[in-house]
Amino acid sequence: MAENVFPLDPAKSMFEQEVPGHNRWHPEIPAVASVRPGSDFRMDCLEWTDGQVKNTDDANDIRDMDLSKNHVLSGPVEIEGAEPGDILVVDILDLGPFVPEKGAPEEAAGAGWGYTGIFARENGGGFLSDHFPEAQKAIWDFHGIYATSRHVPGVRFAGIGHPGLFGCAPSHELLAEWNRRERALIETDPNRVPPLALPPEPRNALLGTLPESERERVAAEACRTVPPREHCGNVDIKNLSRGARAYLPVYVEGAKFSVGDLHFSQGDGEISFCGAIEMGGWIEFGVDLIKGGMAKYGMNTPFFRPGPVEPRYSEFLSFIGISVDEEGNNHYMDATLAYRRACLNAIDYLSRQGYTREQAYLLLSAAPIEARFSGMVDIPNACATLYIPTEIFDFDIRPSEEELVARDLGRQASAG
Amino acid sequence: MAENVFPLDPAKSMFEQEVPGHNRWHPEIPAVASVRPGSDFRMDCLEWTDGQVKNTDDANDIRDMDLSKNHVLSGPVEIEGAEPGDILVVDILDLGPFVPEKGAPEEAAGAGWGYTGIFARENGGGFLSDHFPEAQKAIWDFHGIYATSRHVPGVRFAGIGHPGLFGCAPSHELLAEWNRRERALIETDPNRVPPLALPPEPRNALLGTLPESERERVAAEACRTVPPREHCGNVDIKNLSRGARAYLPVYVEGAKFSVGDLHFSQGDGEISFCGAIEMGGWIEFGVDLIKGGMAKYGMNTPFFRPGPVEPRYSEFLSFIGISVDEEGNNHYMDATLAYRRACLNAIDYLSRQGYTREQAYLLLSAAPIEARFSGMVDIPNACATLYIPTEIFDFDIRPSEEELVARDLGRQASAG
Amino acid sequence: MAENVFPLDPAKSMFEQEVPGHNRWHPEIPAVASVRPGSDFRMDCLEWTDGQVKNTDDANDIRDMDLSKNHVLSGPVEIEGAEPGDILVVDILDLGPFVPEKGAPEEAAGAGWGYTGIFARENGGGFLSDHFPEAQKAIWDFHGIYATSRHVPGVRFAGIGHPGLFGCAPSHELLAEWNRRERALIETDPNRVPPLALPPEPRNALLGTLPESERERVAAEACRTVPPREHCGNVDIKNLSRGARAYLPVYVEGAKFSVGDLHFSQGDGEISFCGAIEMGGWIEFGVDLIKGGMAKYGMNTPFFRPGPVEPRYSEFLSFIGISVDEEGNNHYMDATLAYRRACLNAIDYLSRQGYTREQAYLLLSAAPIEARFSGMVDIPNACATLYIPTEIFDFDIRPSEEELVARDLGRQASAG
Amino acid sequence: MAENVFPLDPAKSMFEQEVPGHNRWHPEIPAVASVRPGSDFRMDCLEWTDGQVKNTDDANDIRDMDLSKNHVLSGPVEIEGAEPGDILVVDILDLGPFVPEKGAPEEAAGAGWGYTGIFARENGGGFLSDHFPEAQKAIWDFHGIYATSRHVPGVRFAGIGHPGLFGCAPSHELLAEWNRRERALIETDPNRVPPLALPPEPRNALLGTLPESERERVAAEACRTVPPREHCGNVDIKNLSRGARAYLPVYVEGAKFSVGDLHFSQGDGEISFCGAIEMGGWIEFGVDLIKGGMAKYGMNTPFFRPGPVEPRYSEFLSFIGISVDEEGNNHYMDATLAYRRACLNAIDYLSRQGYTREQAYLLLSAAPIEARFSGMVDIPNACATLYIPTEIFDFDIRPSEEELVARDLGRQASAG
Repeated sequence: MAENVFPLDPAKSMFEQEVPGHNRWHPEIPAVASVRPGSDFRMDCLEWTDGQVKNTDDANDIRDMDLSKNHVLSGPVEIEGAEPGDILVVDILDLGPFVPEKGAPEEAAGAGWGYTGIFARENGGGFLSDHFPEAQKAIWDFHGIYATSRHVPGVRFAGIGHPGLFGCAPSHELLAEWNRRERALIETDPNRVPPLALPPEPRNALLGTLPESERERVAAEACRTVPPREHCGNVDIKNLSRGARAYLPVYVEGAKFSVGDLHFSQGDGEISFCGAIEMGGWIEFGVDLIKGGMAKYGMNTPFFRPGPVEPRYSEFLSFIGISVDEEGNNHYMDATLAYRRACLNAIDYLSRQGYTREQAYLLLSAAPIEARFSGMVDIPNACATLYIPTEIFDFDIRPSEEELVARDLGRQASAG
Repeated sequence: MAENVFPLDPAKSMFEQEVPGHNRWHPEIPAVASVRPGSDFRMDCLEWTDGQVKNTDDANDIRDMDLSKNHVLSGPVEIEGAEPGDILVVDILDLGPFVPEKGAPEEAAGAGWGYTGIFARENGGGFLSDHFPEAQKAIWDFHGIYATSRHVPGVRFAGIGHPGLFGCAPSHELLAEWNRRERALIETDPNRVPPLALPPEPRNALLGTLPESERERVAAEACRTVPPREHCGNVDIKNLSRGARAYLPVYVEGAKFSVGDLHFSQGDGEISFCGAIEMGGWIEFGVDLIKGGMAKYGMNTPFFRPGPVEPRYSEFLSFIGISVDEEGNNHYMDATLAYRRACLNAIDYLSRQGYTREQAYLLLSAAPIEARFSGMVDIPNACATLYIPTEIFDFDIRPSEEELVARDLGRQASAG
Repeated sequence: MAENVFPLDPAKSMFEQEVPGHNRWHPEIPAVASVRPGSDFRMDCLEWTDGQVKNTDDANDIRDMDLSKNHVLSGPVEIEGAEPGDILVVDILDLGPFVPEKGAPEEAAGAGWGYTGIFARENGGGFLSDHFPEAQKAIWDFHGIYATSRHVPGVRFAGIGHPGLFGCAPSHELLAEWNRRERALIETDPNRVPPLALPPEPRNALLGTLPESERERVAAEACRTVPPREHCGNVDIKNLSRGARAYLPVYVEGAKFSVGDLHFSQGDGEISFCGAIEMGGWIEFGVDLIKGGMAKYGMNTPFFRPGPVEPRYSEFLSFIGISVDEEGNNHYMDATLAYRRACLNAIDYLSRQGYTREQAYLLLSAAPIEARFSGMVDIPNACATLYIPTEIFDFDIRPSEEELVARDLGRQASAG
Repeated sequence: MAENVFPLDPAKSMFEQEVPGHNRWHPEIPAVASVRPGSDFRMDCLEWTDGQVKNTDDANDIRDMDLSKNHVLSGPVEIEGAEPGDILVVDILDLGPFVPEKGAPEEAAGAGWGYTGIFARENGGGFLSDHFPEAQKAIWDFHGIYATSRHVPGVRFAGIGHPGLFGCAPSHELLAEWNRRERALIETDPNRVPPLALPPEPRNALLGTLPESERERVAAEACRTVPPREHCGNVDIKNLSRGARAYLPVYVEGAKFSVGDLHFSQGDGEISFCGAIEMGGWIEFGVDLIKGGMAKYGMNTPFFRPGPVEPRYSEFLSFIGISVDEEGNNHYMDATLAYRRACLNAIDYLSRQGYTREQAYLLLSAAPIEARFSGMVDIPNACATLYIPTEIFDFDIRPSEEELVARDLGRQASAG
């Protein structure tokens, strides 16, 4: 069996682990384990907020979250022989929430449950913040491969589990470039709420086993973990699921590979910010190297091959969005807007079936929905499409001549 | 067998047909046939440019195209009993290029062949115009369900056939709204090349059987066919393929349904403007009505259900793009940019396999590639992913330890 | 466009065509066309019984059929350069029922409709003859890729189209071997009804363009077309559908390839004898050769690769059968019996939903059901499984706590 | 998290567990746990032979196995309120080999490895015993969802995990019927090797917590666990995988549900007797009842719905078998023979690629191959097809014009 090179105690915060992980990116964070190319290994992960969200029926924890602690990552792991310019081949062999034998306490996300959150506009925001400014939450219960929720009844779906975030440490040069370009963006509108990007934040910076003497300096320059970047990072790609193979750039000696933000499931776009079903648990990797692969393949961003056991649905109800905004203004080839409109159209539709709009939003965030760039050339309107598997519902959601049934489907957990 | 309610002579221009179609949207274009809800019917279509593109080894026809003639559409067809506010249920029962028995001349696109074009920046442009400013072309030969190209050797794929464009006529009110919002956009940068949007263009306006006396007025206000709009129109959604069911808003008495722009295949985004494999041919529809459906379901844009016979590939090589532009500037949650970067990353990769960058671009436009909105909340970087089925290549394109083979894969058709 | 090397007049019998096909296998039947390896070509086909079955509401035509006329085949086609020992690579590029432009008369199967028949025990029989001794029929209407039936209402499914029968001519030696082994089987119970196998039958033998002088001799030794044999022949494999590639043994110079028995759809096993949806129409092939391939790959029976556009369903209700017969007797590892029991269990189930048992049998024959050899080692019971896609029904057929709805689903066409 | 109602110590034999399971079917074996309808629960399982097979490079353990100990089952579990005539709805929520936290010793099958065995004709036999009379073995290593083998190099595939065996206890009447019909079969050839069926065997009968006083009587009448029967039992259906829902007949008060024979993967037919990848591990179920369901649905054998996460392959190389035996004799509609021939044809083909015939046989047994009843009506030849996913091989196994590569692929583990 694959060795666990990063064991954690699920009853403790990442800050209190015997060997802590980290929640910032920096090349100097020391590796805490080492593996050989060609080998398999296992790592434990805590839920990304380090336990700030509880299995409750209100969303105050989402509303009041301290975002400076996120994401708590496991690692870094050194890959023997990896050098800058190599490609690190990473097989995501399997993953899951805490197994019963792990002894995780009931209150730990991943101990049989996970959550999806809509963040308040003032604290995190999200894709549809203008329409959903308040904190909301859904708790999902795990039944083997399936999830159900007391906050979104009437659905049961197979999760498309994946690590939301993984990658190798940036070099100093790359780190500086990230800081430069993100700072430049922030400066275009420094007081925006939610902010355009997140600068380094020394408060609550967790830097693994970095010597005390270096912490202040490193914390001031280490990058936040929120955006995906060219090393991979927080890509939140649901198709990096079981059996997938990722090809990652290596920027530092030993690669320094880290992982976190395990998701029981997620829809394309993870549209409500914390839109996946968040959990702690375990993940198993296999690694190998393509020496000098970055130059060989002209790689500047990761590529990957999806795995063979993604949930397979065949009937979908699909929604279209075009890049005309809610006020009727035309925007030129704006795919972000087109997808927002597709999401809103789907939410409108689901709300006719008995769901609150917040439930619909949470559901589209968490279930294995598909979202495609459909037309990107027909000026001025980008066209996006969103595909909801109809088989995940207990009832028939397809349009028909028959009258709409008035269903009581309860409501999500709200703040306040 | 379903009756052909819109027969065409494939040897003639749409302008010269006994009963001509149209190339603008306007509520007053008269219906030329009538069908009952619950019935199946067939229609012929000409290739969208009305025969301007030839089966040749240069791209001068693309470069020199008169865009004012596009798209030539078949219809309108009246659906008996349809009223504004209804949903028109449209089953795309099957479609294909010209059958041999139709007697289409060899030079007609659809007579065993189709094409994909990259439009010059000065005449049409496209998604990657900044990188591909010149006109380029690939001719595809049809082998039953498969396409191959002398201009992009080494691939064979099953086409995901679909009508790029269909929908019901807008009401006068809706038409006015389209004109208003698109004019407003154009006015933000009226001299841009390519333009931000296309205003009404009386030159080459084809208005079906509209009486001569009305033509000047109608041509001046009829909308162009390029963008997808809330009636559906030129959505270029590859998944509206065989067996799909679309739900369309009805805005005028009788619905006035039209169709055109048949595609033998297309990748998500149709990224090179005329990125599908364009053809003339036939299509078979079934129609029905959901009376008052628009209010019932809160519909403001079409929805649909994909069909069960889309080409099914299971191994993909996937590319990631984030919203950092080619010069290293960060853009806030810009999915259009993220997808552009994913496309460019894929083109980079394919160019290492022996393709010219133009061939790679044409291939990604035409083959059944998938493109997803993967992460839309991790500020500031949107994350897009593009999935190329590896099985469509004659050779193994997957990354490996082995040396890259130097392959001679010819080149596309170019202008000049 | 691919040339049609075997054009037919759908208004005429195969016996009356200008260039007739054949309905027996014999190496001396002359090739009527010739194609080069590497080329595509098209052939017309008539429905397998040469028009004996009509679009009516009784099954007298099935009951009274003259089986000596079947199957009427198109060809043979010579493949240039093919020699005994080669493998003929056959791509099934596409196929379909008669296109409207073909001008097939309404009464021709394939002109918008097809049929499925249960043959009477006294005239043909079938897999479940002991349970269904009388002739029955269902007419299916084609709606593009879909079929529906007035005789089996409540279902609509995408057809998995394929040629039921194709292959190369046997050598004289192989023909003699077929006759030897089938005669030996017949002699074990020569008076059985239905017979164990069909010996040569000069009556109604159609031998293509064979000279008159040879006909009597050849008709006396030519094999019937019913069973699949090592050349392929009447394999009735539904997965030899659009886009599939078959690898066939070549036994005679020029290969002499023939085809017939087009099916709009069929379930695994074609369980009611004429269990597919039978039709006339067209088929397009691509061919190539692997010289000396039979020895190279140790081939004694064809192999093939399925195509990428088979109808894709993901929800199934599955039935199990084990090799205990209807009287409670255990048979040792008898997969035929296990599958019969699985079919009967499925028929029992469907009959509770409102179908007659005959309708259920016809439906399982024609729809794209799957059937698997599940367990073949657990003595003494073979285990077979049958998978019905639940999405093909208008209503929910899944088991539940709710009461069964009494549905009136009409009935099939019967004889008498 | 679901409670484990049948915990086991993987370091001990099933005979030595604190609460032992059973290896015979009998209605009087007492339930050892109780669960409510609507609840989820977990059970541990040992590998079916109770640890007789080791992770070694010889097959002496297979050759010398004491078959009287098999299969060791976990349970019975009482379902509260279940009564004869009910349908027990069983969701297979998830399953897997031993997790690291379980502390299974390395030598326990399921602790990172499993095995596939060909049984000797004299001790167990199998589907192809006439061709493979000696004991052989392959050890498979688990890499998350994937399996590889040092005994069958060149392949890696995603396992289709499932319980080979589960079901409810028979009633006394049903048990008597099983004994009657199996004894009748044995008596037709009582000395056959391997035997036609297995009568009750008191030696090594494990009867759970049955009181000592009842053991002799019960052991003499309890049925063996090998064949699938109408209660389900050892069906070895690979598609009863993660997420599947089975509908089982209930014959006794409380249902008395048991499970065992976990498989990491298996091909259709499990063709080498112990053809799955055998392992110990855990399984999670959800249960519910349809009261009176057996009569309502006319159920006499289980039905089920497959799950949504079966490994998804799309390219196959397929082999055909017809019911003509190896000596050229025709058998009437014998699907068992047709499938045997398809298997042998596939083995022939794989042996040209460098595998020993035994390796090929082991591979077809263990990998997720598909096998279909293709034609069951074309007298006299049944037609079976076997589908090998080509993507599981490191090299290209498809037929081509190119020369065959001579590969050294080692060999399986053999006896002696």
